[in-house]
Amino acid sequence: MILDEVIAGIKPIDADIMRQAAERQDQLTKPPGSLGRLEELSIRLAGIFVTERPSVRRKTVIVAAGDHGVTAQNVTGYPQEVTSQMVLNFLAGGAAINVIAQTTGVDLVIVDAGVGSPLPPHPNLRVIGKGRPTRDISGGPAMSRNDAETTVMAGVQLAIEAAKSGAHVLGTGDMGIGNTTPSSAITSAITGQPLRETTGRGTGRTDDELNRKITVVQRALAVNNPDPTDGLDVLAKVGGYEIGVLAGVMLGGAFARRPVVLDGFISGAAALIAHTLCPTASDYMIAAHQSAESGHRVVLDHLGLKPLLDLDMRLGEGTGAALAMPIIEAAAACLSDMATFEEASVSNRPSESDSPCDP
Amino acid sequence: MILDEVIAGIKPIDADIMRQAAERQDQLTKPPGSLGRLEELSIRLAGIFVTERPSVRRKTVIVAAGDHGVTAQNVTGYPQEVTSQMVLNFLAGGAAINVIAQTTGVDLVIVDAGVGSPLPPHPNLRVIGKGRPTRDISGGPAMSRNDAETTVMAGVQLAIEAAKSGAHVLGTGDMGIGNTTPSSAITSAITGQPLRETTGRGTGRTDDELNRKITVVQRALAVNNPDPTDGLDVLAKVGGYEIGVLAGVMLGGAFARRPVVLDGFISGAAALIAHTLCPTASDYMIAAHQSAESGHRVVLDHLGLKPLLDLDMRLGEGTGAALAMPIIEAAAACLSDMATFEEASVSNRPSESDSPCDP
Repeated sequence: MILDEVIAGIKPIDADIMRQAAERQDQLTKPPGSLGRLEELSIRLAGIFVTERPSVRRKTVIVAAGDHGVTAQNVTGYPQEVTSQMVLNFLAGGAAINVIAQTTGVDLVIVDAGVGSPLPPHPNLRVIGKGRPTRDISGGPAMSRNDAETTVMAGVQLAIEAAKSGAHVLGTGDMGIGNTTPSSAITSAITGQPLRETTGRGTGRTDDELNRKITVVQRALAVNNPDPTDGLDVLAKVGGYEIGVLAGVMLGGAFARRPVVLDGFISGAAALIAHTLCPTASDYMIAAHQSAESGHRVVLDHLGLKPLLDLDMRLGEGTGAALAMPIIEAAAACLSDMATFEEASVSNRPSESDSPCDP
Repeated sequence: MILDEVIAGIKPIDADIMRQAAERQDQLTKPPGSLGRLEELSIRLAGIFVTERPSVRRKTVIVAAGDHGVTAQNVTGYPQEVTSQMVLNFLAGGAAINVIAQTTGVDLVIVDAGVGSPLPPHPNLRVIGKGRPTRDISGGPAMSRNDAETTVMAGVQLAIEAAKSGAHVLGTGDMGIGNTTPSSAITSAITGQPLRETTGRGTGRTDDELNRKITVVQRALAVNNPDPTDGLDVLAKVGGYEIGVLAGVMLGGAFARRPVVLDGFISGAAALIAHTLCPTASDYMIAAHQSAESGHRVVLDHLGLKPLLDLDMRLGEGTGAALAMPIIEAAAACLSDMATFEEASVSNRPSESDSPCDP
């Protein structure tokens, strides 16, 4: 399969089933609308799965890791080796994403999309791009257009494979020292918003450090001049390998008719690329949370997505996605498994007016 | 045990352990602070359980149901029988709280605190006040002071029992047609905020209906003149049996050193009573969500609590509490189970400055 076939295979979610699901919601034993955003979400899940009674019990987060040549420009405080060290931590089960996934019943797929430092082979590590950090985007493109397409397709395949293995819902996560820098570049390139809005300070960084980061992103955009209407061009010129894999997961998830839960800012940059390649893909996207990283708001506004959680998190790794998944599972379960007024013999009709009232 | 002994037995959470937990957070393999509110929450859990490595795997929501004489004043659109019908729905597993609790691994305790219509005996129904709706608060007190104290103590016992049975975290839920009316009365009585702020419209209610509800609450406060510094007086005069049980669960939870997760507005009114009886009890309270019912914001402001979720829910039953519990579980698990930088051999020290930076 090639990318064009994947994009052509992504269909809109089903509007008829969504109408039926909305009618079913109003028959369930609760005042209409009283489950708020769980109801909206359940109706979208019905449209995605083309059934009035969706189920999202089996949950998988795909965590892609990659390194970035632009770290040579001192855009981040941690050394590049931390990317590979954290991948080892994921494989050993010691990172935040492991602990949260364990708590919320989420399976993890860990992907070496282009980690720069050596990683020993490991049965649970999927390797796409061993030992290839991106080139420094402040001096030229991150990767070739061909590499960008291959990387996106690898993500597509991971998503399709996870869906075939039984995952009802997919989530995205990232690890990559320096990857807020390409994410800011992608966000400004695609949304047209100024770098002051799309570039975050990160923990404890000074004004000087933030200004240097903005200058580096500015240079990356000036040198590369990415075409904002061409997702692959943006990815190749100012992106990253893990970002490409995650964009592919989003396209592959939509192709396989699975909801895809977006983590924070880096997943958001990947979502902008996926959306540029195929606007319909965003029907399948669910924003897990509002990241504390400032550019994330720009991403969600552009995609028209409203986050489920807002807990001041900014870790990445898919932690926000894994944390939001029980809410998504619960939303589907309420629509599918609650009793109707008739089934439970509960009086539905308000006693004194035709308008539904809360108890 | 009497209520005064319970109140005397509620101790502040442990500040020393909280300092140690905060230090541990900064050693875990993530940029400091990057888990946002999960970190704050985990530190509070450490203080509650007096251990640097808390665990909240076992989760119980106590759902108390009661009826309200004030429904004679046409303050709600559903007939009173719906309370007992919904209790039967809880026992049969068909309500939203059943489905959400099932999804999030939460045990339920269903309590008849004073349901007016007949309920057949059921092995999973705890009966405290069979067949006793409150008296109409617009004409006099809801219950005697003695009944108020007995009801609160029944909630205390339920919480202590749940903790002894192994629950690490407790949640509160309510069912009671008309119970936003006493909740508004309690909230205005204790916080001093005007009824326009504490009284919600409910779904689909007209301005006329809202105005009638406000007039009824106004009358209830004028006739009864509850003492805002005396929680039992407020409960007896303008409260409800399920609200008293939930206030007791909050006190009993704090006594047993368990976090207590508050659901929405009715649980919030109970929390105001518990807080009035024992201000230290609020150290143990976690606000699950921001209810769409307008008075809830007044409650949380008064208690100084910030909700974890904001999903436009306004159902009650403990649905918000059950939905927030995986987040609380994950917060504890991150503090307790993540690897430290040293354990995972991950480079911690930023490469170019002493300030920690995000990747």
